[in-house]
Amino acid sequence: MSKLSREPNVIYVGRKPPMNYVLGIITSFSGSNAKEVTLKARGQSINTAVDAAEIARNRFLKDLSVDKITIGTEEMPPREGENRTRMISTMEITLKRK
Amino acid sequence: MSKLSREPNVIYVGRKPPMNYVLGIITSFSGSNAKEVTLKARGQSINTAVDAAEIARNRFLKDLSVDKITIGTEEMPPREGENRTRMISTMEITLKRK
Repeated sequence: MSKLSREPNVIYVGRKPPMNYVLGIITSFSGSNAKEVTLKARGQSINTAVDAAEIARNRFLKDLSVDKITIGTEEMPPREGENRTRMISTMEITLKRK
Repeated sequence: MSKLSREPNVIYVGRKPPMNYVLGIITSFSGSNAKEVTLKARGQSINTAVDAAEIARNRFLKDLSVDKITIGTEEMPPREGENRTRMISTMEITLKRK
């Protein structure tokens, strides 16, 4: 069972180019008739999430609007060879169909 | 006349480490008795703005809350040797004292 099937309207943004996630947004809205889709990103992927939301909204789905943006902090396990947990910023962007 | 004196409660986030902007946030709130401070960032600095807001809020000014976050797109002049203008994502985070 994939992550996507557990949370149908959540897209986890990682290190791929923004267009990959733009496609995910378009697919979620057109395939499942979803009313809203949430992008979740951490650390450096936060940029990519903003890029994907903006590209989807400006170029492909003109009736999309940003419903909510939240930021937060998560504790991550230490990197190999380090002792301390790291704090990493997180962001969630919820897009909604007008 | 510096940028800061024109817009007293705006901090432009660039390529420096997040702590530089955390200091800016603390200074704005404590020096000028500001009720709110807005971080503005573009492109890859968007991460840094989120990091700075989170660090300020979690470690230094516990009475800060995120009042508003907006995202947008700006057109930038072409890089040298290129013809086309580039679109770049922008973000504004407004922090407010409770």
